[in-house]
Amino acid sequence: MNDTYVRIEYEALLGFCRRVFEKLGLSNEDAAIASDVLVASDVRGIESHGVGRLWRYRNGLKTGLMLPDAETEVLKDTPSSVVLNANGGMGAPVSVKAMNTVVEKADANGSAFGCVRDSNHFGIAGYYAMLALEKDMLGFAMTNTAALGVPTFGRQVAYGTNPLAFCAPADREKAFVLDMSTTVVTRGKVELYDNKGKGLPLGWAVDKTGRSAENPKTILDDMFNRIGGGILPLGGEGEGFGGHKGYGLAVMVDILCAVLGGAAFGTDICDTETSSARVSHFFGAIKIDRFRDPADFRKDMDIMLERLRRSSPAEGCERVYFAGQKEFEKEAECMTEGVPLLKHTYDELCWITSEEDLEAPAASS
Amino acid sequence: MNDTYVRIEYEALLGFCRRVFEKLGLSNEDAAIASDVLVASDVRGIESHGVGRLWRYRNGLKTGLMLPDAETEVLKDTPSSVVLNANGGMGAPVSVKAMNTVVEKADANGSAFGCVRDSNHFGIAGYYAMLALEKDMLGFAMTNTAALGVPTFGRQVAYGTNPLAFCAPADREKAFVLDMSTTVVTRGKVELYDNKGKGLPLGWAVDKTGRSAENPKTILDDMFNRIGGGILPLGGEGEGFGGHKGYGLAVMVDILCAVLGGAAFGTDICDTETSSARVSHFFGAIKIDRFRDPADFRKDMDIMLERLRRSSPAEGCERVYFAGQKEFEKEAECMTEGVPLLKHTYDELCWITSEEDLEAPAASS
Repeated sequence: MNDTYVRIEYEALLGFCRRVFEKLGLSNEDAAIASDVLVASDVRGIESHGVGRLWRYRNGLKTGLMLPDAETEVLKDTPSSVVLNANGGMGAPVSVKAMNTVVEKADANGSAFGCVRDSNHFGIAGYYAMLALEKDMLGFAMTNTAALGVPTFGRQVAYGTNPLAFCAPADREKAFVLDMSTTVVTRGKVELYDNKGKGLPLGWAVDKTGRSAENPKTILDDMFNRIGGGILPLGGEGEGFGGHKGYGLAVMVDILCAVLGGAAFGTDICDTETSSARVSHFFGAIKIDRFRDPADFRKDMDIMLERLRRSSPAEGCERVYFAGQKEFEKEAECMTEGVPLLKHTYDELCWITSEEDLEAPAASS
Repeated sequence: MNDTYVRIEYEALLGFCRRVFEKLGLSNEDAAIASDVLVASDVRGIESHGVGRLWRYRNGLKTGLMLPDAETEVLKDTPSSVVLNANGGMGAPVSVKAMNTVVEKADANGSAFGCVRDSNHFGIAGYYAMLALEKDMLGFAMTNTAALGVPTFGRQVAYGTNPLAFCAPADREKAFVLDMSTTVVTRGKVELYDNKGKGLPLGWAVDKTGRSAENPKTILDDMFNRIGGGILPLGGEGEGFGGHKGYGLAVMVDILCAVLGGAAFGTDICDTETSSARVSHFFGAIKIDRFRDPADFRKDMDIMLERLRRSSPAEGCERVYFAGQKEFEKEAECMTEGVPLLKHTYDELCWITSEEDLEAPAASS
């Protein structure tokens, strides 16, 4: 392990986050959910959406951009659907409630879907999709985000990184869990290159002229100020490598999350100094037994996933993975060895600790 | 228009295809559906899935790989789902029936999904998804195909081009219609480069070592013989440009089409000299009024789609399009000016004409 990391015991980290959220005004139940989603991200190796964001969440709650006690409003409720207004509350608690409602409805109805509007950052989409797995269902989760993606042939941002997650249960094998942004990379990755003073690979982002560019600083500045430029869709610049497909997927996510739920979409979603993004989410569940015996489904999934992970690797590569496999392996490691956190992130936790009069979780190197 | 093309009046082309299918043993109803799907593809500018395939369909029906009068079997039927066994029939007729059933079920149930197994090539996925539009529903359609895609870090094919289609209705604007393969390109594109003696752009396909390669002939041969190599997923080689995302999407499509319906998946789907691929499909519909007033949904779609098509183009580009826009524009052109067919394709039609004792549709240049 790199010496810029420390490890924290899983339960200790979870308990610490829970206490921070409680101090910030969340109910015990909401604090438990928000912590679980946050720590699950680090545990699954998705550092960008993990405890490193606690500092930002705290800022949002302190400044009133995110409300710790917002009342969730039910805008629509049918046997196959639910539309919730989070009224500016935290993303994770309302999303767990929405996905659990969707799963419950799908249990009776065969399939069900839900939208949540006026919400905030909900962490990893896969967390919510996976709530369907134990119930022998296929799970879906998506969210829109502040606009930073440029359409094919364009030069101005028009949509967010708009991740989508899909999961399907297996038996002996772990589940198939796809959790992907529909842009080539996220803003965090571009920021990382900026921090390191590195040029971007061509095909990640375009500058204000709309052409693939390397300077992360200029791109981030011009994008933030809406001068032009932004991140490219999955598939990159133009149509030659399928950039129009990634662009289409991103808009699909925006339609399902925002247009279906009657929420803000596209460039109306932005982070500024004074307002939060007010993003929206989409959740879905399809019950497998409406198609075939779930036990048979799981057995076929075993065959499919085993074949994929045993597939011959390319020269110079060690292994082939199926979606979610790396994350399950990381999870197993974290449960025995502790959750790795960047030293920098741990220092932030310690700072929050002193501000909120709490005790920091013990770290080992 | 390029001089290698001719134009045929829409109704004449449709009628001709219908008569060919009737001669080959399809019922009047099935022949009408199969023709409509085929011609719709040319009309929407998707030449690779259009009348140019009539010759192949005829071969399949003549040799018994596709059955003109296969009995569709209902394997499962619930208020939210349907599973059909096409028993080796043509893809288009059973797919239209499946999607219409799904739309009907969604009308009562809020959402519904269907799988079709043991089917054949169904043409453009978007055709089926669009059957939901008039009913104020979101439509989904997917299919798996013979395996030709290589997983991230791999060197052997593991899944097909596995296209997915999603559509959403608008009011003044045309609908949003995403219809995309989940690989960077399809086999047809690689064959085209082979025919022209051109090298492939790096990032489209890998050779038997699993590394990005340029020679289309070697790749096609080694892929067909399962020696190694194949087409890359959307996002290209490795993870740097999101290739693992395209790979994940392709497997998602295989799960929804095949594992959910109890059909063959992955490398079990292949075209050989003596057997057809026996592919499977997935269809879905979600009723918009379970979330909000469809009229309001359509108005918001207008705003979204108008913004996208008016988005500033990159330097050197003329326009920004939303998914499906180009195809709707092409359709309008074809209805007034006739459907463009490659001269080569028209010659094939004339040959079929003489074989089947039919009259060829008139062509203008």
